[in-house]
Amino acid sequence: MSTANASWIKTVSLPLPSLQDNTADSERLISALKAALQTNDAIQVDFGLLKKMPATLRTNEFNVRCILLKDAGQWLVLGLQGATEIRPVSGLAVDLGTTRVVLRLLDLANGRILAEDSFDNPQLTVGPDILTRIHFAESAGGLTKLNDLIVAGLNKAIRDLCQSTQMEPEDIYTLAVAGNTTMTHLFLGLNPRWIIREPYIPAVNKPGILRAAELGLRVNSAARVLIFPNIGSYFGGDLIAGILYSGIHCAADTAILVDVGTNAEVVLGNENWLIACAGAAGPALEGGVTKMGMMAGPGVVDKIMIDPRTRQFNLHTIGDKTPRGICGSGVIDLAAQLFLAGMIDIRGKIVPAVCGKHLKDIDGLLHLVVVPADQSATGQDLTISQADLDSLIRSKAAMHTILETITQSVGMELKDLAKFYVAGTFGSFIDPRSAITIGMMPDLPLESYSPLGNSSLGGATLALTSADSPAEIDRIRDRITYLELNVNQDFMNRFSAAKFIPHTDRTLFPSVEINQTTVEIK
Amino acid sequence: MSTANASWIKTVSLPLPSLQDNTADSERLISALKAALQTNDAIQVDFGLLKKMPATLRTNEFNVRCILLKDAGQWLVLGLQGATEIRPVSGLAVDLGTTRVVLRLLDLANGRILAEDSFDNPQLTVGPDILTRIHFAESAGGLTKLNDLIVAGLNKAIRDLCQSTQMEPEDIYTLAVAGNTTMTHLFLGLNPRWIIREPYIPAVNKPGILRAAELGLRVNSAARVLIFPNIGSYFGGDLIAGILYSGIHCAADTAILVDVGTNAEVVLGNENWLIACAGAAGPALEGGVTKMGMMAGPGVVDKIMIDPRTRQFNLHTIGDKTPRGICGSGVIDLAAQLFLAGMIDIRGKIVPAVCGKHLKDIDGLLHLVVVPADQSATGQDLTISQADLDSLIRSKAAMHTILETITQSVGMELKDLAKFYVAGTFGSFIDPRSAITIGMMPDLPLESYSPLGNSSLGGATLALTSADSPAEIDRIRDRITYLELNVNQDFMNRFSAAKFIPHTDRTLFPSVEINQTTVEIK
Repeated sequence: MSTANASWIKTVSLPLPSLQDNTADSERLISALKAALQTNDAIQVDFGLLKKMPATLRTNEFNVRCILLKDAGQWLVLGLQGATEIRPVSGLAVDLGTTRVVLRLLDLANGRILAEDSFDNPQLTVGPDILTRIHFAESAGGLTKLNDLIVAGLNKAIRDLCQSTQMEPEDIYTLAVAGNTTMTHLFLGLNPRWIIREPYIPAVNKPGILRAAELGLRVNSAARVLIFPNIGSYFGGDLIAGILYSGIHCAADTAILVDVGTNAEVVLGNENWLIACAGAAGPALEGGVTKMGMMAGPGVVDKIMIDPRTRQFNLHTIGDKTPRGICGSGVIDLAAQLFLAGMIDIRGKIVPAVCGKHLKDIDGLLHLVVVPADQSATGQDLTISQADLDSLIRSKAAMHTILETITQSVGMELKDLAKFYVAGTFGSFIDPRSAITIGMMPDLPLESYSPLGNSSLGGATLALTSADSPAEIDRIRDRITYLELNVNQDFMNRFSAAKFIPHTDRTLFPSVEINQTTVEIK
Repeated sequence: MSTANASWIKTVSLPLPSLQDNTADSERLISALKAALQTNDAIQVDFGLLKKMPATLRTNEFNVRCILLKDAGQWLVLGLQGATEIRPVSGLAVDLGTTRVVLRLLDLANGRILAEDSFDNPQLTVGPDILTRIHFAESAGGLTKLNDLIVAGLNKAIRDLCQSTQMEPEDIYTLAVAGNTTMTHLFLGLNPRWIIREPYIPAVNKPGILRAAELGLRVNSAARVLIFPNIGSYFGGDLIAGILYSGIHCAADTAILVDVGTNAEVVLGNENWLIACAGAAGPALEGGVTKMGMMAGPGVVDKIMIDPRTRQFNLHTIGDKTPRGICGSGVIDLAAQLFLAGMIDIRGKIVPAVCGKHLKDIDGLLHLVVVPADQSATGQDLTISQADLDSLIRSKAAMHTILETITQSVGMELKDLAKFYVAGTFGSFIDPRSAITIGMMPDLPLESYSPLGNSSLGGATLALTSADSPAEIDRIRDRITYLELNVNQDFMNRFSAAKFIPHTDRTLFPSVEINQTTVEIK
């Protein structure tokens, strides 16, 4: 991960104008900045700022602090303050999620986080997923409505953030927005129609740096917005932000970055090359890993231990509340523990002889009771059905197949990976030990696993705090080779082999102890 | 003069999107344009245009005509039409004069002039000159009012021009505006306060290419405006436009360009160097050459012949109407003819013995009647007074001194100049023979003189029709050495020597025959 630097802000003392040195204010400032930045790159003063500049320069006796941004090899001067003035200079990093939008307010002088806020994407009122929203965007006024919803949501959150930090929206000079391709289109008011139609063409891959005012954002009138570029319809700016945050593009050793979100997006690479693929293209992944279990929250089971001898369940809930459901990472834990206790077999099938009293038949389908009704917050049994387990097996098999496919496409083995970065909030909660046990993630030393949390927000933060980031982002984007996942016979063979716990080829998972008494394979 | 080319418009056929080639619309267009333009420069699509682009591409089966502009080494795509669509693509050249604003509508496809219009600068209601307007700009709301006046004036003229050519303002994609430094500031809404105060600092020298919408101009929403840069407070973009139009910056032989307007601005140079000065800095020039005589118009005397034997006046008026006044170029003709007829002496003093019946005493001051009351349209004598002649002598002496000073500053003589370009509408009407006779302009072969007419409008036209112009304009601006005219003893000595007709040093004007019978020098 790059370290923050404060070169977006430069304080300069201009030589005072005289008859011998009577260049214009703007060129005088630019010349002082070129010296301070030690650059020959072009520097441009925002036109709106130009109107205020002569007075600001003279009020402050030509000692000024400049707020800068670099775009396409050219520096932009966005703000000007007296060198001794104490006004905040802020940036706003935005993770533009389909479901949730997260904002982080930063002090551009030192990269310090001033505040964070998040809100449900107001487009949820139109539809929960990308597909529904794109169809809605095609109806009359639909695109405008979706665009208005997200822009209004952002403006409200900006006002709230500013209020909580006693700042003004005018104090925000730069923004960085990372979202998937569709969310980026909807935020920019671009027609997403062709994203979901073969051959899946976005309107734009590299929107670049735009004016906040042009996008309807109420911040400083000169503010600019860096929009993270996308690779294509199914590999968005949120992932580019994740790569930037992970730093895999700077390391000598090859590492992998996996975003376990609605789709499984994977990037493999090092300082020399980057290769990426997105699971959404493969029908095997439909449903996705996150569909298992509910959203994390108080009372949700997130960790499970099963005593292999007594088959006693030992649960942990978020906030230590009475259990009311199981989240995705809890489901992975549960499956691993059920397998280790011999309660499900290598195909993920419930072993009735072992499960005994935990079993229940609901509507003709076999369920395993995790929390009995009298101990749950809902007054109902919390269960996992055979269908849920089948779905989990398909998901974990698809994930493993994708990881294997991308790694072998460059002639490597999963075991050769130096680092395994897990991006996304959901990914952060996964216990790698459990994910390895069920064969969802490769059998690497536990210290290779590194959860990144909200890497999209992390990348957006870096984009604002490091002056080299915009160029670095472009370099990442242009270096990525996108691997189209062909769901061919080879893929399906791998997939079938991965539909066992941990895998048909047990040598791939030497650390997983198989402890089962009976395994029936029909 | 550069020749126009139409490379602002490029028609391209994009490869159709496919699963094998699924890059985004914007990047697909950019890639096709890079090939068509044979460039590696960055190409950016206007953000507003991006919203319409996917539909335009598909409606026209990916065969499109692009409207382009190049700014700071980067191409901008401003417009997109179907390749077979027949919609006009226009540019607007603007000469932003203090007194008069002239517009020229151009077909960007072939550089053809579609229409012209002009209007009195609406800021005349605030004050006739730059100084009054700058003081007014400092009053509350003053700058906004001046800015609103000129922008509204331009918008009205744009509407009129479009109506007369059956176009829409949306069909205008590029504009080029050439004005003096103060007019440029008022047009951009920049505070001109420091332009007239020592050490005379403009807010900006190189405004660059701005968005028309940002300036309040109602044309295509993606339209850009090239603002001609200035050298300083007293050498504006109108003169840079004049240089571009004259082509002196491209010629091997050294030539001079003189803009005989309110001030006398002079540029000397060739393909290797350019040196410039503006007369406004010297108090000797106060009043200026144009203060003599009235504005040209019907019935105004613009050419005068005097029979040296009979001293009979032979007048020409604009439109052959009954005379109602004398314009500036007429005054120069008059002075030359009076001198050749021996009616004024080498000091410009009226010779009573020769003038005889033409003389009249008005309020104790000697006047020479050019048109007697019974032949004039006003019913009053049209006269020139000794005071007028004294003023003319000072003006012509100042002009000659400036020309001599700048030429000698590079070790050249006026007689070495290959070409003498006279810019400005007023300059176009001056008869070089008369200007030489009174010693206002150097005694060069008449074929060296070349009137450029409205060179500011000419330069603005070139800026729109030649794709290399924006870079060429920057090169001209950056190459000019500005010569500060010091009104020192040396300057005053030259000035005194030039206060004779044609000059104290008659060897400088070998072609002027001195025909006088009596010359009294006190």
